[in-house]
Amino acid sequence: MADSSITRVDVLAKALGKAKYTDDLKFDNMLYLKVVRCPHPHARVIGINKEKALAIEGVVAVLTATDIPGLPCQPKERPILVPEIARYAGDGVALVVAESPKAALEGAEAVRVEYELLEAVFDPEEALKTGAPLVHGDNNVAAQSKVCKGDVEAGFKEADLILEREYNTHRVEHAPIEPEVAIAVPTFEGITVYCPTNSPFQVRQIVAETMAMPQSQIRLFQPTIGGSFGSKCYDAGVLASRAALAAKLTGRPCKIVYTREESIVESTKRHPYKMKYKVGVKKNGKLTAMEVKIIGDSGAYKSKTPFVISRSSIEATGPYVVPNVHTEAICVYTNNVTSCAMRGFGSPQVAYASELLMDELAEKLGIDPLKFRRINGLKDNSLSATGQVMQNVTLDECLDKLEQEIKWSSRKAELKQQDKTGSIVKGLGLACMYRGESFGSAGQGSDYAGATLQVQRDGSITLYSAMSEVGQGGHTMLVRVVSEVLGIKPSRIFVSPVDTCYVPDSGPTVATRGTYVIGNAIRLAAEEVKAKFAEVAAEELGVRPEELVFKDERIYCPGDPSKSISFSRIAAQCYLKSKSPYGYGWWSPPVGSWDREKGQGEAYSSYVYGACAAEVELDLDLGKVEVMKFVAVHDVGKALDKEEVKGQIAGGVSMGIGYALMEDLVVRQGVVKTVNFDEYLLPTSLDIHEIIPVIVEQPSSYGPLGAKGLGEPVMSAVAPAILNAIADALGTRVYDLPANLEAVLDKARAAKGRCCND
Amino acid sequence: MADSSITRVDVLAKALGKAKYTDDLKFDNMLYLKVVRCPHPHARVIGINKEKALAIEGVVAVLTATDIPGLPCQPKERPILVPEIARYAGDGVALVVAESPKAALEGAEAVRVEYELLEAVFDPEEALKTGAPLVHGDNNVAAQSKVCKGDVEAGFKEADLILEREYNTHRVEHAPIEPEVAIAVPTFEGITVYCPTNSPFQVRQIVAETMAMPQSQIRLFQPTIGGSFGSKCYDAGVLASRAALAAKLTGRPCKIVYTREESIVESTKRHPYKMKYKVGVKKNGKLTAMEVKIIGDSGAYKSKTPFVISRSSIEATGPYVVPNVHTEAICVYTNNVTSCAMRGFGSPQVAYASELLMDELAEKLGIDPLKFRRINGLKDNSLSATGQVMQNVTLDECLDKLEQEIKWSSRKAELKQQDKTGSIVKGLGLACMYRGESFGSAGQGSDYAGATLQVQRDGSITLYSAMSEVGQGGHTMLVRVVSEVLGIKPSRIFVSPVDTCYVPDSGPTVATRGTYVIGNAIRLAAEEVKAKFAEVAAEELGVRPEELVFKDERIYCPGDPSKSISFSRIAAQCYLKSKSPYGYGWWSPPVGSWDREKGQGEAYSSYVYGACAAEVELDLDLGKVEVMKFVAVHDVGKALDKEEVKGQIAGGVSMGIGYALMEDLVVRQGVVKTVNFDEYLLPTSLDIHEIIPVIVEQPSSYGPLGAKGLGEPVMSAVAPAILNAIADALGTRVYDLPANLEAVLDKARAAKGRCCND
Repeated sequence: MADSSITRVDVLAKALGKAKYTDDLKFDNMLYLKVVRCPHPHARVIGINKEKALAIEGVVAVLTATDIPGLPCQPKERPILVPEIARYAGDGVALVVAESPKAALEGAEAVRVEYELLEAVFDPEEALKTGAPLVHGDNNVAAQSKVCKGDVEAGFKEADLILEREYNTHRVEHAPIEPEVAIAVPTFEGITVYCPTNSPFQVRQIVAETMAMPQSQIRLFQPTIGGSFGSKCYDAGVLASRAALAAKLTGRPCKIVYTREESIVESTKRHPYKMKYKVGVKKNGKLTAMEVKIIGDSGAYKSKTPFVISRSSIEATGPYVVPNVHTEAICVYTNNVTSCAMRGFGSPQVAYASELLMDELAEKLGIDPLKFRRINGLKDNSLSATGQVMQNVTLDECLDKLEQEIKWSSRKAELKQQDKTGSIVKGLGLACMYRGESFGSAGQGSDYAGATLQVQRDGSITLYSAMSEVGQGGHTMLVRVVSEVLGIKPSRIFVSPVDTCYVPDSGPTVATRGTYVIGNAIRLAAEEVKAKFAEVAAEELGVRPEELVFKDERIYCPGDPSKSISFSRIAAQCYLKSKSPYGYGWWSPPVGSWDREKGQGEAYSSYVYGACAAEVELDLDLGKVEVMKFVAVHDVGKALDKEEVKGQIAGGVSMGIGYALMEDLVVRQGVVKTVNFDEYLLPTSLDIHEIIPVIVEQPSSYGPLGAKGLGEPVMSAVAPAILNAIADALGTRVYDLPANLEAVLDKARAAKGRCCND
Repeated sequence: MADSSITRVDVLAKALGKAKYTDDLKFDNMLYLKVVRCPHPHARVIGINKEKALAIEGVVAVLTATDIPGLPCQPKERPILVPEIARYAGDGVALVVAESPKAALEGAEAVRVEYELLEAVFDPEEALKTGAPLVHGDNNVAAQSKVCKGDVEAGFKEADLILEREYNTHRVEHAPIEPEVAIAVPTFEGITVYCPTNSPFQVRQIVAETMAMPQSQIRLFQPTIGGSFGSKCYDAGVLASRAALAAKLTGRPCKIVYTREESIVESTKRHPYKMKYKVGVKKNGKLTAMEVKIIGDSGAYKSKTPFVISRSSIEATGPYVVPNVHTEAICVYTNNVTSCAMRGFGSPQVAYASELLMDELAEKLGIDPLKFRRINGLKDNSLSATGQVMQNVTLDECLDKLEQEIKWSSRKAELKQQDKTGSIVKGLGLACMYRGESFGSAGQGSDYAGATLQVQRDGSITLYSAMSEVGQGGHTMLVRVVSEVLGIKPSRIFVSPVDTCYVPDSGPTVATRGTYVIGNAIRLAAEEVKAKFAEVAAEELGVRPEELVFKDERIYCPGDPSKSISFSRIAAQCYLKSKSPYGYGWWSPPVGSWDREKGQGEAYSSYVYGACAAEVELDLDLGKVEVMKFVAVHDVGKALDKEEVKGQIAGGVSMGIGYALMEDLVVRQGVVKTVNFDEYLLPTSLDIHEIIPVIVEQPSSYGPLGAKGLGEPVMSAVAPAILNAIADALGTRVYDLPANLEAVLDKARAAKGRCCND
């Protein structure tokens, strides 16, 4: 429709403070929960003494694993309440239910738990050794994944230069503005849970299995969500189950809400990776072989680790043609806090490593780093690391736009001339990224979405799916797709809240699948309505349905402008003629062949590409890095809403800056040390300077109206672009994340030392 | 499935007091409304003085028609608030909004409305005369309907006997246990209305038009409903609109709940009819012609009058073959309380008249009344009054079962021998009925239902539609249909509450269309799921989908018993294979030709039939009639649940007993006099003796699994069977309803006098 950007459908209520978050909801007679957590990284629960807690006024009950009617935990997953063994310093052991938050807190402090301390393991490499303390099973392996193409040894023999590097990425926190919360209300028919989550049906399943109840008797309602970044998945299931358990046992509404400290101590994080790369390259810049070894820390439980590590192994070589590849990724159980899904989901770690590697290779060969990426970058019909014949590759187009926007060569030349005698030095760096959309052939198996649409008698529309609006603009995307298909104003469309009583299962809102998969489902729903309406309109206008065009709130016959009818009128006619005004779409991405043993095949049906550049100012005395300018070029297939796309990019870049420079969840001997935002540093608006989003639109073959996902992709190339810019400024490289004050200052001093010694 | 009767899905919560009715809902900061009503039957509002009311502590606002942003009333319908002219003593003029019910009541009493009294008219025949006060338009005609077949004059010439009779039926109250109530909550996106109604989408439309808002921004949620009997339709729209108006203007939740008195004064009633019948019959009992004139009282507004009168004219001759028919029905505006839909919807009035007529004709001809009905009753291929070729007629089968059950001839003979010298006399009477299902070709035009079904990953099911559970067992019917189609236990299925945000428009739950139309929609939804599941199961079992049978919670191959798989497992497989587990059904009954001018054509696509007998004991000193035994035989097509069917019949018979013998809404000079249940007499359990429901099952061609509707049909033949039994006991006839103490005593005394004079 005419308006190229609309106000995001969820944003006005949020901006005006009118949106209702879970914590805003009140229920009569509500009880409050507090979790008693194990302070030890590995311990057996010997006894739980509830007496003192129960003696506190207002404490109603102290619940433990034995009170759970169903599964106290999913296999190898974090327990709702620990049945016997606590595997990290944060595992919930008991739940105090009280008349007030204060009484619940006092009760939790009064519960006495007797533990038998068990030997713990914190380092993934140690955990793999024979004789290491076992977290799960008999070898601590949480998941493994391989990608083997060609013959790496032969490839290395062809090479003129072989480089071996190790990169370490750190553990970071999702830190959504809204911490974990859930309210469960017992109803006559079952339990209604109010809970912010990106995975409503999975959370419902966890609650149902905890409570040993049919899924249809658990109703999950999604209030406004205060951000997720991948965190509100299994974590939400744990809270929802705890609230449901208390509600069912007390017969009263029960609320559980975490403080920031509780959230940071208990919730899942991004996987920290140790990555060893060995790469061969010819003098002409052509890559010949790459060997990658990744060891990730899964922490105490499995969570999404198998899928994270699978994606990392597939994307480990970056968006480049590498004839011979051998990647082995393994994720290991430790007694650390659990790792799980986080924006990028295994991509940012490997993008970081491979992009630093590309930069260093270019430097060693004396080739411009941008040119180096062009030499090796994927193109149409290139073979990927998994042997997939790539199509619709837009890496070169992204690099073209990046080059133009940042004026790569001239700016590079200018910076080369800069005066480096002062305390401030500048640098320019770039990085590329690619990412498969949705779960892919090696992914979670089932990958689908349902979405529905009902045109009301007055032509207004209700739309619903399980798309979780986590702040990414997902609901606006749905509205956009419907608006485009039906040629109507977005304002006609009302997005109904997610309620598992009604909405079709659309899968979780994760994995760059919101636009791709759920967007396609709503497209199909809208197309069904369009076909039905075209039939009614054709009858009214005396033409054939296929002659009709839906545009500008009308349905008309381009051959005869006099034959036209308004959308609203057709809606009314539809009802009058007893024709269905309902559309249901179900979509599942094409699944390619996949050889799990070798990691070869059509990994994903669709890929996104991007190229980013950062210009940094680095204070040699303080180690402080400011990202003065960040250009992010992303192929979005088709920008359904340009302002939304730009906002999405800006958000991702900001998060990437935090990942690159300051965020760092410190865990020592299994205990989280940075438990609030005074110590865990997030970028603020003062840390963000110029961000320039650049949109490439090469319609996707499968995406709805050609659109691709963007929320996760924007994270991947940010940190490596910044680190490459730091290297450009310093003349030496930081290999491990984060490049915080200390790390940069160390390198700066070392470089200075070397410089003085020169 | 195995269990032939299940516990009704809605009933346990109700029986245990756990069901949440609208009045049970609480919202923070809620305001309370009270209506200021016009006490005059016809008046112009000259001025409204709010001052005194606004001075009362707790009164927040006094709203009038000028505060309404949209339509203050639909054309010729009862206004939300009177813009200028009040047309009956009950029209709402102003709305007091207050912090408490008490303050609202005090405020309402303090509002001073100045009226100019207008001349009023109360008698429909008077209202048709030239010069009569005009209620609407220029002739007070609310609606007219005709049925003209053959040549009645010629028919009368053929007759050996011509009988002319007049019958009057009275005005009665729906009297559901829950009076009218609505709560409106302003939300950021629009308004959410909690309201018990049988027409959620129509009520939403009224609210949207009152508020000048798109329908999709009005969310109507249906709490548990405490009965309707046709009352919770437009009446609910008025309350919902008043609550929505107050909520929007104050920004706070607003509740409006009527006392019984308010409900009786303001709400709609069953149409009172004056019916003049002229009928010709041959000695052999064959009817030759019938001329029917009906004048109905529409009261002050139009409401459903056109559709009520249309049905009455179609069904006026009863389920009999009448070669020549001339029926003219007219409904007239008066300044009485409004008439609208009520259980039976125009059928009970004409069934009453035609069945009394048949009895008297039989008596005059000396033919047994049961035999007389057999002689004239519709059979397969008979032509109805509208010229429709009738099929699947089961009147004879109903009469057979009735004859057996009541032992018609022997009991009749026994009663003939009774000693009539005491004060108690006994009588036996019968009546037949037929009724078209749903709106029919002459009906409201659009006639449709959507319904949806989603199988969850664990094989439990959520089901939703706009089917309103008004106590008739509609939700249980839906569960039954799904259970039968999918061969699964009813307990797997959860019926989600009606919420216009999600549920497909299923039309209103009225007009014997719940089972017929909505039942078919859910059948189609279940069949869609069945087809999808069969495909997945066929793949698993290595057979063709069409070989599979769904039964006993399994899907199996009858040819090879080893090939079988559980329903739950297929549900899980369906998700695993990314196959849609969703079914959507949309159904619309076949529409036949209809000549509106002559009232000829295929009036309805499906008919129900029934035959009833009543045995009464009549106290000649008191005029009191006790219905000692009532046999009700109904063709239900297929009894989806036998206990439910029996309960439905018992309820309808009880209501019919009230209609026949005691209920009477007295209105004098436009003012309702019987404003509570101390004066408006409803039957209690002490008035109900033996009720014997008998089920005939002749599968319907169109109904879901062959089932037909039953809720409304069970009303129709009750009053005439009782009145015919009274005539049998007394030897003289009561022609007008109700046959209350006074009426019966009058006749008894007159009969006695005559008897003595003999």
